[in-house]
Amino acid sequence: MTDHTALGPGREFDLVRALLARWGDLAAGVGDDAALLDVPAGHCLLASADSAVYGVHFRRDWLTAREIGWRVAAAALSDLAAMAADPLAMLVSLSIPNAWLADIPDLVDGLGDAARATGTRIAGGDLTAARELCIAITVLGSAATPLRRNGARAGDRLYVTGHFGGPLGALAELERGKTPTETARSRFAHPVPRLREARWLAEHGARAAIDISDGLLSDAAHLAAASRARLTIALDGLPTLDGISPDAAARSGEEYELLVASPHALDAADFARRFDIPLTDIGRVDAGDADVVATLHGARVASGGGFDHFS
Amino acid sequence: MTDHTALGPGREFDLVRALLARWGDLAAGVGDDAALLDVPAGHCLLASADSAVYGVHFRRDWLTAREIGWRVAAAALSDLAAMAADPLAMLVSLSIPNAWLADIPDLVDGLGDAARATGTRIAGGDLTAARELCIAITVLGSAATPLRRNGARAGDRLYVTGHFGGPLGALAELERGKTPTETARSRFAHPVPRLREARWLAEHGARAAIDISDGLLSDAAHLAAASRARLTIALDGLPTLDGISPDAAARSGEEYELLVASPHALDAADFARRFDIPLTDIGRVDAGDADVVATLHGARVASGGGFDHFS
Repeated sequence: MTDHTALGPGREFDLVRALLARWGDLAAGVGDDAALLDVPAGHCLLASADSAVYGVHFRRDWLTAREIGWRVAAAALSDLAAMAADPLAMLVSLSIPNAWLADIPDLVDGLGDAARATGTRIAGGDLTAARELCIAITVLGSAATPLRRNGARAGDRLYVTGHFGGPLGALAELERGKTPTETARSRFAHPVPRLREARWLAEHGARAAIDISDGLLSDAAHLAAASRARLTIALDGLPTLDGISPDAAARSGEEYELLVASPHALDAADFARRFDIPLTDIGRVDAGDADVVATLHGARVASGGGFDHFS
Repeated sequence: MTDHTALGPGREFDLVRALLARWGDLAAGVGDDAALLDVPAGHCLLASADSAVYGVHFRRDWLTAREIGWRVAAAALSDLAAMAADPLAMLVSLSIPNAWLADIPDLVDGLGDAARATGTRIAGGDLTAARELCIAITVLGSAATPLRRNGARAGDRLYVTGHFGGPLGALAELERGKTPTETARSRFAHPVPRLREARWLAEHGARAAIDISDGLLSDAAHLAAASRARLTIALDGLPTLDGISPDAAARSGEEYELLVASPHALDAADFARRFDIPLTDIGRVDAGDADVVATLHGARVASGGGFDHFS
């Protein structure tokens, strides 16, 4: 269904109409002052905003416009995955310099790819002129029992989904003017929000989660702070891409894998069969001050080291 | 209640903590991957995104940082007013250049002023570094029976709230290096989302609405297009600020007043007593092609002329 409200004349609205034509069935109910959505009965609403700025979050020579669109949408949807939520809709605000106007169709196709892959409706947004490309996305989802960051308890096991270090490896190669491996580039250009995986994890007993956007150790610190618990992580078992050390992989941002806490052992073999990525036991939750104690080969490694916009 | 999820260390999160401290009770439940919200049973969810870019939407020498914050939030909330929705929450994404960091506390106070004035919770957002200040706001609301743009029918009366031309008058003075009248400046710097007024209008029978962001005639064209009807508007009766012609006032953007269609006469005197602004009958809805026919002193005036970002 594409029951958009008809818009009046003007070039700005011509651009809106062009976007809607590209999105086709993905966009629905656009054109009124606000989008109308239904939240399933018994579910709460989850809302998260994420934005990306040209030159800060991405470069034009490293990614296609379509990949840029995918990445920004995937990053936003990953926040819904971290809560084990079902996506309802995304709203897309684009601040567009003239130099980017010709790339906007490809960019919105990338947003559309991510919406299609995750069953997310594009329900509206905003277009403005600007001197710098800024893509601001709000995602809305629903869940009967969302996974929180503050749900980890002493005694829980800690698990991570997937392999780490791909985005870091790809960036290191790109910064040296080299071509990353196909796997590393794919992890960098086409990260996958772990929405289905999160629902499986929640259904199988996970009771706290966070997605890895700044780096495993940085995001573990948020989980520790929220749950007021100590997380003990052994990096030796962290699945990494070829050529990336576990220590480096644990500081790689924009992974969009999940770190979850579960009071009982999860069936990693069943998870891997279903989703074709590993689920790895990497540590435990202990009582004590909110902190992350990470070790490699038995020695403690420094925590933190993730990306900080204002450091 | 300010039941935020504790955040880990880092300057970016220090800035988040500073914002949360300024917002106090206005912000709630921030710090998880997504905000948790409840939509009242029997209500649908309304969602709208709005953004403002420095140099495009505002200038530093014309408005204080606090006024800039108010205006952006008020503009976003006005989209909920246009649907006669109750605000649930706003999400605030700030892309911040270093030169603006010192003004961010005042700017977020302005966002907080608008949240407080409208009973809107600040439920999250995103902070990024940037070379250009961009403020992207998503507002979420709920309504049992939202007012749509497509609800106007032949025979309906058309009403507008408030006085027009203030922002235009203020801008004209500012652009000439002069000081606007206090009333005009207040309408420019401190527009009021007509949320309570919209609920009254919906309760008293209005069945279509739009807020005036681009200009009365431009936005009337959207209402006409959405409702597939002809709007006939007599500008002679349009309440305007001193020194502004009705023709100019009908092209003044960022008014955030409402244009509504009602199948029966509304009690303008009761409205004015309650809300201290006029409710004015300015025309009617006719069958025919989607169009706006506006007249002044009996002669037809050109339609359109509102703000278009890409013209």
